[in-house]
Amino acid sequence: MNSHSFTLAERLIPATYLQQAAAAKKTRESLIRQLIEQRKWPEEGWDDTTVELFLADLSQMDSNNFPGNCGIGEREARIASALVARRHYRIGHGIGRSGDLGEVQPKAAGSSLMNKLTNSLVLDVIRFMGVKTSAGCFVVPMATGMSLVLCMLTLKQDRPDAKFVLWSRIDQKACFKCIITAGLQPIIIETVMCGDELRTDLTAMEHQMATLGAENIACVLTTTSCFAPRASDSVEQVAVLCSRYNIPHVINNAYGLQSSRCMHLIQEAARKGRVDAFVQSTDKNFLVPVGGAVIAGFDKGLVERISRMYPGRASSSPAMDVFITLLSLGVNGYKNLITQRKEMYIYLKEELTKVALKHGERLLETKNNPISLGMTLSSLAGSDSKTVTMLGSMLFLRCVSGTRVVTGADLKEVAGYKFEGWGAHNSSYPVPYLTAAAALGMRKSDVDLFSHRLDKVLSKLKGRSAPPTPTLVEELA
Amino acid sequence: MNSHSFTLAERLIPATYLQQAAAAKKTRESLIRQLIEQRKWPEEGWDDTTVELFLADLSQMDSNNFPGNCGIGEREARIASALVARRHYRIGHGIGRSGDLGEVQPKAAGSSLMNKLTNSLVLDVIRFMGVKTSAGCFVVPMATGMSLVLCMLTLKQDRPDAKFVLWSRIDQKACFKCIITAGLQPIIIETVMCGDELRTDLTAMEHQMATLGAENIACVLTTTSCFAPRASDSVEQVAVLCSRYNIPHVINNAYGLQSSRCMHLIQEAARKGRVDAFVQSTDKNFLVPVGGAVIAGFDKGLVERISRMYPGRASSSPAMDVFITLLSLGVNGYKNLITQRKEMYIYLKEELTKVALKHGERLLETKNNPISLGMTLSSLAGSDSKTVTMLGSMLFLRCVSGTRVVTGADLKEVAGYKFEGWGAHNSSYPVPYLTAAAALGMRKSDVDLFSHRLDKVLSKLKGRSAPPTPTLVEELA
Amino acid sequence: MNSHSFTLAERLIPATYLQQAAAAKKTRESLIRQLIEQRKWPEEGWDDTTVELFLADLSQMDSNNFPGNCGIGEREARIASALVARRHYRIGHGIGRSGDLGEVQPKAAGSSLMNKLTNSLVLDVIRFMGVKTSAGCFVVPMATGMSLVLCMLTLKQDRPDAKFVLWSRIDQKACFKCIITAGLQPIIIETVMCGDELRTDLTAMEHQMATLGAENIACVLTTTSCFAPRASDSVEQVAVLCSRYNIPHVINNAYGLQSSRCMHLIQEAARKGRVDAFVQSTDKNFLVPVGGAVIAGFDKGLVERISRMYPGRASSSPAMDVFITLLSLGVNGYKNLITQRKEMYIYLKEELTKVALKHGERLLETKNNPISLGMTLSSLAGSDSKTVTMLGSMLFLRCVSGTRVVTGADLKEVAGYKFEGWGAHNSSYPVPYLTAAAALGMRKSDVDLFSHRLDKVLSKLKGRSAPPTPTLVEELA
Amino acid sequence: MNSHSFTLAERLIPATYLQQAAAAKKTRESLIRQLIEQRKWPEEGWDDTTVELFLADLSQMDSNNFPGNCGIGEREARIASALVARRHYRIGHGIGRSGDLGEVQPKAAGSSLMNKLTNSLVLDVIRFMGVKTSAGCFVVPMATGMSLVLCMLTLKQDRPDAKFVLWSRIDQKACFKCIITAGLQPIIIETVMCGDELRTDLTAMEHQMATLGAENIACVLTTTSCFAPRASDSVEQVAVLCSRYNIPHVINNAYGLQSSRCMHLIQEAARKGRVDAFVQSTDKNFLVPVGGAVIAGFDKGLVERISRMYPGRASSSPAMDVFITLLSLGVNGYKNLITQRKEMYIYLKEELTKVALKHGERLLETKNNPISLGMTLSSLAGSDSKTVTMLGSMLFLRCVSGTRVVTGADLKEVAGYKFEGWGAHNSSYPVPYLTAAAALGMRKSDVDLFSHRLDKVLSKLKGRSAPPTPTLVEELA
Repeated sequence: MNSHSFTLAERLIPATYLQQAAAAKKTRESLIRQLIEQRKWPEEGWDDTTVELFLADLSQMDSNNFPGNCGIGEREARIASALVARRHYRIGHGIGRSGDLGEVQPKAAGSSLMNKLTNSLVLDVIRFMGVKTSAGCFVVPMATGMSLVLCMLTLKQDRPDAKFVLWSRIDQKACFKCIITAGLQPIIIETVMCGDELRTDLTAMEHQMATLGAENIACVLTTTSCFAPRASDSVEQVAVLCSRYNIPHVINNAYGLQSSRCMHLIQEAARKGRVDAFVQSTDKNFLVPVGGAVIAGFDKGLVERISRMYPGRASSSPAMDVFITLLSLGVNGYKNLITQRKEMYIYLKEELTKVALKHGERLLETKNNPISLGMTLSSLAGSDSKTVTMLGSMLFLRCVSGTRVVTGADLKEVAGYKFEGWGAHNSSYPVPYLTAAAALGMRKSDVDLFSHRLDKVLSKLKGRSAPPTPTLVEELA
Repeated sequence: MNSHSFTLAERLIPATYLQQAAAAKKTRESLIRQLIEQRKWPEEGWDDTTVELFLADLSQMDSNNFPGNCGIGEREARIASALVARRHYRIGHGIGRSGDLGEVQPKAAGSSLMNKLTNSLVLDVIRFMGVKTSAGCFVVPMATGMSLVLCMLTLKQDRPDAKFVLWSRIDQKACFKCIITAGLQPIIIETVMCGDELRTDLTAMEHQMATLGAENIACVLTTTSCFAPRASDSVEQVAVLCSRYNIPHVINNAYGLQSSRCMHLIQEAARKGRVDAFVQSTDKNFLVPVGGAVIAGFDKGLVERISRMYPGRASSSPAMDVFITLLSLGVNGYKNLITQRKEMYIYLKEELTKVALKHGERLLETKNNPISLGMTLSSLAGSDSKTVTMLGSMLFLRCVSGTRVVTGADLKEVAGYKFEGWGAHNSSYPVPYLTAAAALGMRKSDVDLFSHRLDKVLSKLKGRSAPPTPTLVEELA
Repeated sequence: MNSHSFTLAERLIPATYLQQAAAAKKTRESLIRQLIEQRKWPEEGWDDTTVELFLADLSQMDSNNFPGNCGIGEREARIASALVARRHYRIGHGIGRSGDLGEVQPKAAGSSLMNKLTNSLVLDVIRFMGVKTSAGCFVVPMATGMSLVLCMLTLKQDRPDAKFVLWSRIDQKACFKCIITAGLQPIIIETVMCGDELRTDLTAMEHQMATLGAENIACVLTTTSCFAPRASDSVEQVAVLCSRYNIPHVINNAYGLQSSRCMHLIQEAARKGRVDAFVQSTDKNFLVPVGGAVIAGFDKGLVERISRMYPGRASSSPAMDVFITLLSLGVNGYKNLITQRKEMYIYLKEELTKVALKHGERLLETKNNPISLGMTLSSLAGSDSKTVTMLGSMLFLRCVSGTRVVTGADLKEVAGYKFEGWGAHNSSYPVPYLTAAAALGMRKSDVDLFSHRLDKVLSKLKGRSAPPTPTLVEELA
Repeated sequence: MNSHSFTLAERLIPATYLQQAAAAKKTRESLIRQLIEQRKWPEEGWDDTTVELFLADLSQMDSNNFPGNCGIGEREARIASALVARRHYRIGHGIGRSGDLGEVQPKAAGSSLMNKLTNSLVLDVIRFMGVKTSAGCFVVPMATGMSLVLCMLTLKQDRPDAKFVLWSRIDQKACFKCIITAGLQPIIIETVMCGDELRTDLTAMEHQMATLGAENIACVLTTTSCFAPRASDSVEQVAVLCSRYNIPHVINNAYGLQSSRCMHLIQEAARKGRVDAFVQSTDKNFLVPVGGAVIAGFDKGLVERISRMYPGRASSSPAMDVFITLLSLGVNGYKNLITQRKEMYIYLKEELTKVALKHGERLLETKNNPISLGMTLSSLAGSDSKTVTMLGSMLFLRCVSGTRVVTGADLKEVAGYKFEGWGAHNSSYPVPYLTAAAALGMRKSDVDLFSHRLDKVLSKLKGRSAPPTPTLVEELA
């Protein structure tokens, strides 16, 4: 209803009531206006009504929803199923244009506006969380691994001879495989033990830089967020080396955006050395479905080049999820989530310590990992690793998801490369352990359920005289 | 309600009525059972109720929706916004696992099942549309361009020395840029004119194969669906060459899946020569929002290797859209769309011919392009190309989307490569023209509106004594 | 997005694209404006997007959705469940005010506007369908029976001594019970047979008027839409009598709004005699869920008095359903439904005739019933009515709903009144029969399924040597 | 997915994962099973997923959603608009049958089951809130006023000579009008002042009983929940009188279900005397949209007779809202709401006392009203009541809804009856005042906003030398 309609409605409804209604409408409209004007993350979250009204506005701005549109092309955002149309708010044109993910799509002013606003909001979040000098970012509808591929492919364009990537070992397949996918050759830098903690081997890193030659190295790939007892990489020192040797530096910040510690590391790295891009997952940091990542950096030109490297349009679905979520939460809602996460980290640590004590184990000391915790499983380590592995299955069958049981003795081949002690980020970690993470959105009840189930499973396992054969059906009973 | 609940309900509702209700429930359940059992595209489309019931079933099978779940990992498919949760049917884990897009995700049995079924349904569609010997396919949540990158990156793994891609020129940026993104070097094979039509220059193609050497060529990239007057590439003959020279062959079948002609070409190419992979867009062929593609091939192993090349999980949103749409349409619903498209192609040709005649123009003869049509704009071609360009703007401002106006005189640089006559797929196409496509989902009213508006705009433009300066605001009035 | 926001968006999106988007938005807004201005049923139906945008507008106008609202009353339209809020578009204040269902609710300008517009649209439908001189109407969130109660209670206010209602017998419980509920005493006027048809006994009617005395009669209650072989009451002649005797006349037009024949009868009755109110169901005539009725009349004052007689607010849910449906269909969409219904009536008649012929039965001649048809079941009528009854069960168990099997021999007591031949609208209808109706929304497939199943069931029943005991479980097998 | 489908899915997904999924499904199914089995209000609220799954189950059980249904009747729950179908979960048959609102509808086993379960849940709530011996209840899709009409019409059936209703004055139009609508004659029993409080005049009540004669009185109508300074009626003593004189007693418990005090009164009244029915609104007590009421009583037979008095089917929409809400909240969720309400009552009292003190006013002492509070407006009472009235407008314009400003000097005619001091429940309340209620769902922010705005408005009004003319536009500025 435009203002003319409001006036006409006075024939039916007293003007006073309509004035109130118009004032209410104006309040919502002005939230939208401010967002477009300032492109800042609102302090207070929007209610669902306002979010959906804005989505309806944006949807109407796309040509497939124009009342008089006549589509004569091969790609007209026609949607066959009403269910599909509804779940995307009738937004179908995706984002970007042949040339650039960030470019405006002439057929889809609404989608384009949503995409630009999303990127502005996300940049605000990045700065709010501590990377204050980040110059630009964009949401890409690919998960972290493939986004890292895109970064590496872009960096490689300027370094025709480069074929290596220096990679500080982290035992998650996607983190390693992305190098292979990009057609590059990983140089694995083993972590070094420091107490319980596994840290970046800076000496080895620099040695490889010197040996291989900067021009042959596409980039260094470090990681902030990871499973304990691996610590966040020493990204600051690596950045200094990268600066010195003139080598690009890409940081896998998968679920580090939620941690001011991780974000601070990146900010410091960029201040003192070289960071070309840092990549984080949208699902892990913004509590949306899997499928998007944020590629950010300190040089607007480079960020744009990475964006332009994506050939063609892409799904607007992950951006829409982030857009809705950031508007719904607002700064304050997100702040609450961040605070709760920190509290849950402390609580998880306390509860896990209790379980550990009861069963003769201990927590691994990993002060440089602000999210994940490890607990030894020494007492389960017998002649073979079966009992340790079984603990994992038993927890899984009891609906504990996300915990990892690491024997330290597994051998794994990924893309032709052999890894000893796979899972432990190190060839010879001395003790088996399990990890648990206090990630965004975790609730107290998760921790309570977990420590309860872990305690029961440990008791059950240790009550047995001999390590049993893991029989799933039996365990389910 | 399980059968026990039905029995208990007899205390409240007469048994006869409940038996009927149970029978109705069984009918829906048996549609689902058959789908899981046979993994065939149903002849008759499902109603929205059944589709949503199945989605609810699948959603419940993912750990984030388990009543007693306790998530202790860094990625637990927590969803902050109720709007987001709802639009994804609370399905949040994405598809795939570190290792492979097609792999089952332990935390998400439902998502994984949906993904596998979607791929089965799509394979059925591919075979139904004419590529009967296709051995496998998968939906990837990236649009065509990035999917072609993934194919090329995979093929390159086996050809360490390959750096070239032979590319039969097609003037769509994404089609060209994907080669650059993959870190490869395009060898542009200009099209040859044959009457009005632009065809594959097979001689130049073979010459390059011989000159560059097969081991240096990552693949040949051909295109089926394209804007007239470019014809579908001679994929059959190219396939024979690829087979002879032992060079991989990737076909960009962007919106060719909807055309039995394009699909027949691919089938014949595979029968007589070599086709490694063919890639098509989900939005263009299945009428879903932009953002997905189908990568298909004739060697199951290769298709799986491409899938495994994607590092990490990915968005399940495009697969869900395809899943819903294919179930909703069924074979018969899709068949209707296909038939209507063919009828619209004929109707568009007739109507465009009338407009052309009236304005002293003619349709370009392009019998090897089953979707797109071109009409000359000779009479608008004066001293410069302004009037031709203006026609495009005027149509756009009149809400005609998707038509292209090609002067044949534009010069464009893409990723450092210069293209003369950009837009025309050829350096020296002799006449300016506009194109229009009869794509899936087009309605008669689109054609009527288009021919009406085109006629009016042509009349307006020609009524002017001198080519006017294109002033958008004026035109809008 | 208001116009200011559009201007600001030009910093992000080219102005031309935004102008198009704004034009599209304006088109939708002007549909809404016209509706408010003219309060006419739109010729063309609105798309779902426009309907939902308008609902969102209306919802925002209610105080429970005001961003700064502070509710200090006992009834503030707070909604606890997000599911409930969503399904009502966050509209919660109901309609009306203590005084009057049609009155504006100060806390709910949006709901009130929706309600007024709905009543305007419905009045348009009534006139369109043939009652051109209807002076007013309103949607009441009660089904037909209770709405008739409301009419009678209102009429009775002016006739303190009246305690009788003259009622032309129709064997549907609610039609009879409404008189009892209103605290009145029904005078049953038996129908008279005329060929196969059952018609109003005008002589008996007038006799009662004269005998009882006008001042003792609250009203006459006639019925248009009914099951064959009952015909529509002779409302024209009854209206003339009512006028002559000065007795109010209420017409139960339950599903007659969909029939121009029934509506014509009412128009003629009002032209020649007295009609105070006519009542129709929203679900039967507008294809919405059960629960609403339209009370209409020829004297605006009386219609308003009936509306005011409803004490307090009421559910806006039935009005919302009608509002959405009438806007979605538009005049043209409804016209199509009406035409299809007439075609289905003819088709049902043809198919039923075939089945009748095959089984030695015949269709009842009921030319004054434009919706329902009857077919004799003479051959099933043996010593008792078991076989006839069983036919009903068997059809029900085969998912044929809505058909009625009438033995003509049932005795029924309703609210203390005894009815011989219950179901037949007459104490002594000579032959058992079944009825079927061609109602709004019926499809050809319904008729086909029905005649097929009826044929099979008749064959099965007659193949039996002896009338079997109706065993439901056996029948289901 | 039935168990067969789960087994078949093992070809695609590892059995262990499916077992977990099946277990999760079973958990949800068993919630549903328990509900059907025990018909008890669950302690813990259900999540939206479970609620919607159950609604989908129920919807499938209705014949309009049967895959093979063939509808041949006049009322087949066909739904024209997809928006309407979706918002009702495709449930369209309403509740009840010609004979009885509580009866099973053969075409709609699912709707019927929902309706029966809803009534069971509501009975649980009634008992939980304190009326432990209530024998039955049902949700009726009419608001309180019309529901009271239904009760009175039913009671009147047994008392052919009764024409009076003894009514303890409460100044809400609907409460009075319902008597008129039922065709009865109200005997107004003025309240008596007792301190600030207005109480039931038991002497006058008994006097009327004796004078008019029991057989001439249809019922006594008392009220529990009301605006201060009126107290809840002395229902216990009235019940004793009703018992003694053998007169039916109906209690208007509009928003008293949320108050254990009100519910306790009813329980005691029924224990010591006579209560035939008590009626409460669904929106006020369950936070659903306006439009439903709960009719409850202590004699199952009477409750059923009232239900049977409703002629025909009715909307299932209000019952569905209650059903969803009660399942979503569970006992614990509702308990929280109740506790919060009590806290808000105390908080409101405190804050209002502060404002009163500041402005030289005081709170009215009304210990027998557990929900509503009154504050004097003595200082605004000048020569006329304009300033007092203006306070109301100013609060309304500042988005304070629900507060009432009572001058005590208004004269009002309702249905021909004149009321002095309308709004004050008494002809001569000595002081003007405003009321505010702490009703279910009120939040602290409501109270804060209210006291802030009230303070400001009072300051503004009193700053003026002379009482101004209320100009709405000026006030809005």
